[in-house]
Amino acid sequence: MNEGERIAMLARVLGAQASGVVLGIGDDAAVLDASGRLVWTIDEQVEGVHFRRAWLSWRDVGWRATMAAASDVAAMGGTPWCALCALVLPDDVDDAALEQIASGQAEAGKALGAPIVGGNLSRGDRLSLSTTFLGRAPRAIGRGGAHAGEGLYVAGPLGLAAAGLVTLERGVVDARLDPALAAWRTPVVQLEAARRMTLLATAAVDVSDGLARDAGHLAESSGLEVVLEHAALGDNPLLANAAAVLDLDPRELALYGGEDYALLASSPAPLPGFRRVGELREGRGVVLRTAGAERAIEPRGFDHFTSRSRPPAASDP
Amino acid sequence: MNEGERIAMLARVLGAQASGVVLGIGDDAAVLDASGRLVWTIDEQVEGVHFRRAWLSWRDVGWRATMAAASDVAAMGGTPWCALCALVLPDDVDDAALEQIASGQAEAGKALGAPIVGGNLSRGDRLSLSTTFLGRAPRAIGRGGAHAGEGLYVAGPLGLAAAGLVTLERGVVDARLDPALAAWRTPVVQLEAARRMTLLATAAVDVSDGLARDAGHLAESSGLEVVLEHAALGDNPLLANAAAVLDLDPRELALYGGEDYALLASSPAPLPGFRRVGELREGRGVVLRTAGAERAIEPRGFDHFTSRSRPPAASDP
Repeated sequence: MNEGERIAMLARVLGAQASGVVLGIGDDAAVLDASGRLVWTIDEQVEGVHFRRAWLSWRDVGWRATMAAASDVAAMGGTPWCALCALVLPDDVDDAALEQIASGQAEAGKALGAPIVGGNLSRGDRLSLSTTFLGRAPRAIGRGGAHAGEGLYVAGPLGLAAAGLVTLERGVVDARLDPALAAWRTPVVQLEAARRMTLLATAAVDVSDGLARDAGHLAESSGLEVVLEHAALGDNPLLANAAAVLDLDPRELALYGGEDYALLASSPAPLPGFRRVGELREGRGVVLRTAGAERAIEPRGFDHFTSRSRPPAASDP
Repeated sequence: MNEGERIAMLARVLGAQASGVVLGIGDDAAVLDASGRLVWTIDEQVEGVHFRRAWLSWRDVGWRATMAAASDVAAMGGTPWCALCALVLPDDVDDAALEQIASGQAEAGKALGAPIVGGNLSRGDRLSLSTTFLGRAPRAIGRGGAHAGEGLYVAGPLGLAAAGLVTLERGVVDARLDPALAAWRTPVVQLEAARRMTLLATAAVDVSDGLARDAGHLAESSGLEVVLEHAALGDNPLLANAAAVLDLDPRELALYGGEDYALLASSPAPLPGFRRVGELREGRGVVLRTAGAERAIEPRGFDHFTSRSRPPAASDP
């Protein structure tokens, strides 16, 4: 297919309607009718950095890039509205592969209620997907609004995607690892939790880089210290199973593993659908409390500019 | 710098205000107050595909990526509002280089009246900039609204950026080529022309892939044939000078060279600030009229999926 034919194929595969989208794929820009408060984010998934081709189907490549980008909308308490995607395609990603990628994007967009309504195609030697989402957020929740004394709450899995990544890196095959593989390959944005938290949450982030790090971001932006409860981590039986097979500590995975796209929010009272994992207090930094004893921990995790993207159990064997 | 320090630096360099931007760099998403009709686009510039590092200063890398993305807003008759940028940075792009790239983005944003208010950082082995722009467009102008009998009008240079690209590919050094180099390195979006055309234009595109190709897109979307007047092309003295030094036909450069980001619009009457280059009539395809004689021409140009990105005089010597 030439560029025009590819764009026509993408329009066919992606072409879902969304309210307020006046003009979609095929022109210089999408046209929207907007009113009210919007949140706007961009995320990029690059082959060799964020994923390896051997670890994902083409559909999963599209699904994962779409969900990863939409998660930042949920992290602000927003509802995804619509998206654009700039694709860089190496010559060995053929038309059938592109159609599968687009199918994965379309499925994720359908699950999110937010279709891809435009984008850009380039040739390049590394496959990448840059996805930008607009979301509606009558009450947008930033990172910096938490108060001392509030609880820290999580919705969604912690550590399970990291277990999936270790599984892929080690090439382990075991059915007990399937939930972990699914968590890494086809993450799901916590849309319902995002909706629920808008009533009470004072600050929120999504857990893309690991709980310790992202809780640290929330605390730092709020000028506070965060205390994480060791006992509240790693109690997911799917994670416990996967960690046992991989001979890893489930709580370490929950603390430092990213890419589950769980939501993390501070609140003066419990949030429906969330579980409590800690609290905020005066001070700075991240503290782990184990059986009453506290120790400061490094807010490490997925940092693309320093240690890079591996759960500690994999990089510190 | 670690990721947090880089984001703080980017917030400092890029941190301009724009009306309706409630929250900028540093959270999971930017927060906007929107009302009315918006246009929304994404463009990606990848090292080795869209530019070579040796051909641009770091500032120019940032400027060019920002202008190229904003051009699609102008192409819809819109006014750029604000932008996000996802950067992929190889390890050899150091902090000083990143700051220069951001300075170029900030300067372009200032020239456009539309700052970068957020984004994303990733590590990768190819430098790339994915820029998404929102623009305000009370009357968004698509590609498909032209009528038979209307004139085709251009604002901005044609072929000059292509002459600059040939200059860089050949490594020619000659002061008469400076305007061509500037056109390729630091293109300027036709903001004023975009504003003027909203009164009368029935269809519009920007010339990113070459006049023949982009006029062909406009005609095809409108279900018409476009006739380009050979005599109306290549009369820019800067282009004539550059073409003479490079021993190229200026009209070929004007016809097939892209990346000047001129605006092309159909209209029933002359558009202020535009010049007439042809007309639309019943039929299909692209026709070149030279001294009264007509011949169909290929709507070729910059197509990243077929012939790739060179003016024909350079690739067909």
